[in-house]
Amino acid sequence: MNKESFLREFMEEVWNEKNFDKIEKYIHNQYTIHLDPGDLWEGKTLSRLEFKNRMELGSFGPFPDMNFEITSAIEDENYVAVTWILTGTNFGKIGEHPPTKKAINTKGITIYHFKDNLINGHTQIFDRKIVMKQLGFI
Amino acid sequence: MNKESFLREFMEEVWNEKNFDKIEKYIHNQYTIHLDPGDLWEGKTLSRLEFKNRMELGSFGPFPDMNFEITSAIEDENYVAVTWILTGTNFGKIGEHPPTKKAINTKGITIYHFKDNLINGHTQIFDRKIVMKQLGFI
Repeated sequence: MNKESFLREFMEEVWNEKNFDKIEKYIHNQYTIHLDPGDLWEGKTLSRLEFKNRMELGSFGPFPDMNFEITSAIEDENYVAVTWILTGTNFGKIGEHPPTKKAINTKGITIYHFKDNLINGHTQIFDRKIVMKQLGFI
Repeated sequence: MNKESFLREFMEEVWNEKNFDKIEKYIHNQYTIHLDPGDLWEGKTLSRLEFKNRMELGSFGPFPDMNFEITSAIEDENYVAVTWILTGTNFGKIGEHPPTKKAINTKGITIYHFKDNLINGHTQIFDRKIVMKQLGFI
C-alpha cells in the first residue's frame, strides 16, 4: 500500500471511526508533534498510549463527533501532506469552558512524517481563529 | 497588512516577478528551511544573500519562467500555510543535466514561518515525483 492510501485509512479508521484498537497499526511508538500551534503537546514526542490520550482529551472529549474530510494529498518519500476540512460539535468541556453545543467547520493542512512504514509525527496548521469565532470565544 | 496578504505579495513580487530588490522587504536575515525534502539547503539557516543565491541557483537557473499560483491560504498567529501550483520550463541546467526544454506543473504546500513581521523560514512538501516524470528523468 502506498503512503497516501495508508494515511487515508488511518484518518478514516482512527480519527473518523474512533477505533483506538487500530492505533498500533498506523502510529509509531515515538510520535513527534513538530509544529501544531496551540496544541498542548506541540514539540513533544508521544508513545502510542500518549497519542491515544491526546486524542481523547484534546479532540474527542470536546468534539465527540469530529470528522476529517481529506480534500487533497501529496506524497513524498517519507511524508504525506494533506489538506482537510474538520467538522464537529462541541458537546464536551474545553478546559474549563462548559460545552457550547456549537458546530465548528475549519480547514487545515498537515504534513505527516513516516518512519519504518508507520506515521511518526506531524507538522500542522489550521484555521484556529474561525473555530474560536464559531464557538463564540472571540 | 495581514500576514496572508504580505505572503501573497512576497510570492508575486519576489518569486513570480523575480524582483530581488524586494527580498529585504519580506525575508528575515535568518531564514530557516525546516523541512524541504530534496532541497540542497534543507535544515540550514540562510542570510538574505544566501536566500537570493538559493533562488538563483536552485530555482530560476533551471526554470527561469517559473511561477507560483497560490490556490489556498490559512493564516495563524506566526504562520501562513499555502497550497500552490508551480509551473515552469526547464531552460537551464539542473546539476549536470542539460536543459530538457520540458514544461513542469506540480502542486505543493508550504508553511511559512514569521518572526518580527518578516518571513523567517518554511516547511514544505511538493510533488517531486511528477516533476521527475515530466522532465523524463524517471
